[in-house]
Amino acid sequence: MTEFTFDAPTVIRTKRDGGVLSDAAIDWVIDGYTHGRVHDEQMSALLMAIFLRGMTPAEIARWTAAMIGSGERFDFHDLRSNGKPLALVDKHSTGGVGDKITIPLVPVVMACGAAVPQAAGRGLGHTGGTLDKLEAIAGFTAEISKDQIRQQLQDIGAAIFAAGDLAPADRKIYALRDVTATTESLPLIASSVMSKKLAEGADALVLDTKVGRGAFLKTEAESRELARTMVELGTAHGVATRALLTDMDRPLGRAVGNAVEVAESLDVLAGGGPDDVVELTLALAREMLDAAGVDGIDPADTLADGTAMDRFRDLVSAQGGDLSQPLPIGAHSETVTAPRGGVMGDIDAMAVGLAVWRLGAGRSTPGGRVQFGAGVRIHRGPGEPVAAGEPLFTLYTDTPERFGGAIAELDGGWSVDDQPPKSRPLIIDRIVG
Amino acid sequence: MTEFTFDAPTVIRTKRDGGVLSDAAIDWVIDGYTHGRVHDEQMSALLMAIFLRGMTPAEIARWTAAMIGSGERFDFHDLRSNGKPLALVDKHSTGGVGDKITIPLVPVVMACGAAVPQAAGRGLGHTGGTLDKLEAIAGFTAEISKDQIRQQLQDIGAAIFAAGDLAPADRKIYALRDVTATTESLPLIASSVMSKKLAEGADALVLDTKVGRGAFLKTEAESRELARTMVELGTAHGVATRALLTDMDRPLGRAVGNAVEVAESLDVLAGGGPDDVVELTLALAREMLDAAGVDGIDPADTLADGTAMDRFRDLVSAQGGDLSQPLPIGAHSETVTAPRGGVMGDIDAMAVGLAVWRLGAGRSTPGGRVQFGAGVRIHRGPGEPVAAGEPLFTLYTDTPERFGGAIAELDGGWSVDDQPPKSRPLIIDRIVG
Repeated sequence: MTEFTFDAPTVIRTKRDGGVLSDAAIDWVIDGYTHGRVHDEQMSALLMAIFLRGMTPAEIARWTAAMIGSGERFDFHDLRSNGKPLALVDKHSTGGVGDKITIPLVPVVMACGAAVPQAAGRGLGHTGGTLDKLEAIAGFTAEISKDQIRQQLQDIGAAIFAAGDLAPADRKIYALRDVTATTESLPLIASSVMSKKLAEGADALVLDTKVGRGAFLKTEAESRELARTMVELGTAHGVATRALLTDMDRPLGRAVGNAVEVAESLDVLAGGGPDDVVELTLALAREMLDAAGVDGIDPADTLADGTAMDRFRDLVSAQGGDLSQPLPIGAHSETVTAPRGGVMGDIDAMAVGLAVWRLGAGRSTPGGRVQFGAGVRIHRGPGEPVAAGEPLFTLYTDTPERFGGAIAELDGGWSVDDQPPKSRPLIIDRIVG
Repeated sequence: MTEFTFDAPTVIRTKRDGGVLSDAAIDWVIDGYTHGRVHDEQMSALLMAIFLRGMTPAEIARWTAAMIGSGERFDFHDLRSNGKPLALVDKHSTGGVGDKITIPLVPVVMACGAAVPQAAGRGLGHTGGTLDKLEAIAGFTAEISKDQIRQQLQDIGAAIFAAGDLAPADRKIYALRDVTATTESLPLIASSVMSKKLAEGADALVLDTKVGRGAFLKTEAESRELARTMVELGTAHGVATRALLTDMDRPLGRAVGNAVEVAESLDVLAGGGPDDVVELTLALAREMLDAAGVDGIDPADTLADGTAMDRFRDLVSAQGGDLSQPLPIGAHSETVTAPRGGVMGDIDAMAVGLAVWRLGAGRSTPGGRVQFGAGVRIHRGPGEPVAAGEPLFTLYTDTPERFGGAIAELDGGWSVDDQPPKSRPLIIDRIVG
């Protein structure tokens, strides 16, 4: 040919047939999709081809870089606290059930002296989203400007915001993946997470990579490879990145949903809350502070002495939230009781996640509204004694016709047994770049 | 779950993971896509999953039936000729380069006493479309009503029309496949062809299944499986279906494009034309007449005695065409001459198809306009003697800036050699249901 230009069918065909996309092809397709020259149906076909054919590490790196390049990359290095640059650090979870950890974690890290610029997401599939949970607080908004993000980092040391102008290509692709069944793909997860996290302006990043039934990737080997891929991407972009592999066979904590998870987070910030939520919050806080080079304060002390709760109030208040208003727990509830006495068996994170999604806590169409009140409270954790007839789960929703479907999803995801289930470590491994 | 409904991501996920779609899932997704409840991006992801994972014969059968059910199915059994029901028969080609066979074939079959209700298509990729060719005739239209189709079948014994309300699900899917690189898939080709052909109201059908470089499926084994699949689909729907496997390594005839192919077809109808075009026209005519149970007239006689030409004039005139107007051959031409003397080597159908597409005979966007005048004339066929400097190809277009790209596509698709290329049979095999 006398002149060379790309076209979308040719790029799709290359990946469809198991080929490797060139750097130029990746740059062209991401730029074209961002600006509407590559259409939704073409990107969908390409995403499915990537899902089924995979990507090389070099393709993932270029795809991630192209998505970062589709928008702005924040830079907060000019900000100072006591004359020193801020220690800018963030964390990201690959998504789980009951995973409200960001809510207690960010204030703990603030209270220890680091600053957190966090681009957070909304729920995807059976997993909850930090923004959907925080917006259950009356008045709280994540739609804040870059100027406000800067100001909050300077004044209080954190901002939790919708990704907005960061990696707009990823925002469009993320919305497509949810409706085209192309979510659970290592290259697509790694590039999506890292394009936002590398654009938000942190110098250090800790990844909480989930393993187990409630995670997007089902095997420990896949989750480990995902963690390693993301750590390499972060390191290559000059961000000190490390990952924990953590258990997501069971839900985290005793509350799954939106408002109910905020309530549990407030318990943790008040020095109480479920052991597993506290353990993971402190482990991630220690990794973040270590990665950011901040020491001097034990994160556990900030929960005991109330300083983390104070920072949380600062953060909520800066973003318009009012914690004096009651949390909007669902108006209707239904209780699942124990059919017999014994010991609570294992609880399947996926079953609980889908039940909560059916109650209305998640979305079935992109941009749809979530019910802040939808959720499940777990009254007996795995291994705890159970008396016949006592409440095991309470389900909440504002639309009671959803109870039937939700209870059906929960069925088979739990049992009352004679023996306690095998216990597993919450933190499985640690991967450092 | 208390009630069962499908959703598109679940259906896509099933195929993505290599599963088999249930009849109910196929019915739901085709109906949903026809009526806009399943979106383009979801169908695109599903098509790519089908492309890469395949479909079982039962899935292909149900997918085809669901596409037929998305629209009307014509029924012309009430029509009579001399008191007897019409012998309704059609043919379909899986698409080739220079494949104008429908144009002489339909009048031959009319002249032998059968009736042809033909839903024809437009060009796809490097292959031409019968409608694009016929519309090169001044005034000819394929957008005719069902009433007009009935009237033409009754009065003159044929109608060649755009599929319109037949299998509207296929029309939408066909447009998607072209832009998402999901064209060359056996289940998608078989279901697309047969959904239109089983809805158009013929009782017998002959499939011209192409094999070779210019065909959509590249291997003989794949083309053979495609033919067998389509014959089974036709038979299962009560249509007497058979297939020929024919060569598409080389272009058919000496003209490739729109108006130039009509001109060549008129040569054939006048008793002349290239041998391969005449051979395939007569072979397909004999299969059609046999399948429809019509005998008494030798198809070759209708070319020799001018009755086929008369029927062609009837058909063109019924659909508004005016053969007294000159055919709009491209205003600009360029000639490729022999670099040396010798024997014309093989000619690659794909190279010629792409060259003609670059000249403007095909589409690069769905619904785009084609140039009726764009085309290539082949002056020396494989094995013919060549003198140095004499014309081998003439290229035509209305937009001369296209010559460079077209000649580059043609390059490497032909050669002048010392020895003639190996000859191959035009008709490779015959598959009867």
